[in-house]
Amino acid sequence: MTDNDPTEPTTERTRVRRAADRGRYDTETVHSILDDEQVAHVGFVVDGSPVVIPMLYGRDGGDLWLHGSVASRLVRRLSEGVEVCVEVTIVDAYVMARSAFHHSMNYRSVVVFGTAELVTDDDEKLHGLRAITDHLAPGRWDEVRGPDRRELRQTAVLRLRIDEVSAKVRGHGVVDDEEDLGLDVWAGLVPIARTLGAPVPDGDLAPDVVMSPSIVALVESSGN
Amino acid sequence: MTDNDPTEPTTERTRVRRAADRGRYDTETVHSILDDEQVAHVGFVVDGSPVVIPMLYGRDGGDLWLHGSVASRLVRRLSEGVEVCVEVTIVDAYVMARSAFHHSMNYRSVVVFGTAELVTDDDEKLHGLRAITDHLAPGRWDEVRGPDRRELRQTAVLRLRIDEVSAKVRGHGVVDDEEDLGLDVWAGLVPIARTLGAPVPDGDLAPDVVMSPSIVALVESSGN
Repeated sequence: MTDNDPTEPTTERTRVRRAADRGRYDTETVHSILDDEQVAHVGFVVDGSPVVIPMLYGRDGGDLWLHGSVASRLVRRLSEGVEVCVEVTIVDAYVMARSAFHHSMNYRSVVVFGTAELVTDDDEKLHGLRAITDHLAPGRWDEVRGPDRRELRQTAVLRLRIDEVSAKVRGHGVVDDEEDLGLDVWAGLVPIARTLGAPVPDGDLAPDVVMSPSIVALVESSGN
Repeated sequence: MTDNDPTEPTTERTRVRRAADRGRYDTETVHSILDDEQVAHVGFVVDGSPVVIPMLYGRDGGDLWLHGSVASRLVRRLSEGVEVCVEVTIVDAYVMARSAFHHSMNYRSVVVFGTAELVTDDDEKLHGLRAITDHLAPGRWDEVRGPDRRELRQTAVLRLRIDEVSAKVRGHGVVDDEEDLGLDVWAGLVPIARTLGAPVPDGDLAPDVVMSPSIVALVESSGN
């Protein structure tokens, strides 16, 4: 994104056309959606056919970080500098209307286009892996054993600039046709939230190991 | 899927290669994952580049149903019989290890390859739309006003056979290296669940309209 105008896309293919009023192009909206979700849906083309895989990711400034095993066919393909489309979506509510036609969802989604770049410098790789690990639970990276040389060699780290990007947000109530408002059908929103349960300690955990601050904070921040 | 062998894919591109022990190919696993989630990530190729969009969907037997506005550029493209890759993923837990390298997620995902077929017969379209609406809340279709002719004309309905498909499931605990087990780092699972909040009635709802059975059942089934 070259500026912070929430109403103008940087390229034509990122322009939200259907329900154009739902389009958002400002950095703040894009980053907040990326920061609220953990799984990205990464699309790329293999032999002319589309492939979509779910991947963990991290964000650091204007960079989106992905990683995977260097032995993975798909990560190898991504490493060769192919175009990707990364989509991230959070569903906030079911929109239950009086008519089938007006059923919908409240959601926040981001779509990033670009070419994922293979990171080869070890310090940069560690930087990306920190972003991915801390995206799961802020502060986690500093609590755990970092990658050794063998693990680092086995891990491919990819960086995607968050430049060609758009967000789409639906965040309002039911929109039914005027003539349906009197129907004897319940209509409204059913809110959806992702909630975290009580952490389950690994069976091999020594009895005196206390829960890490990052995990405590993560569970607390989810409202549980 | 031609049979119910959970260990054998129908085509080579659906074979799970990385962490191959996580691959599942049986109908029961595939359908249960599709039935547990509401948003599909639909990938296709536009001018040689990948595009991924989130879409609602429904399942009915071995068919996956998608829909959208006939005015949508993307739905028009899909209607032309292009190849798609539909990915659906549910995250069940964060896997927090003692080492950064072994952090992971427990998840259930499905990937379907195929060509989405535009449905033109009105009865078939209604069948697909029922599947999509009832996928949000079973029984909802029979409670609401069905599409009129104009709405049906405006809606493109697409069917994708769930034939070339694979599932991938990680459902176990932390796997750390033997020599890390003694580290003073908390390790374990943080369970994740999607929970539904109390339904919020539409402001225009007449005071004597009671909550529909489908909504009551939906919220109850989510454990709230």
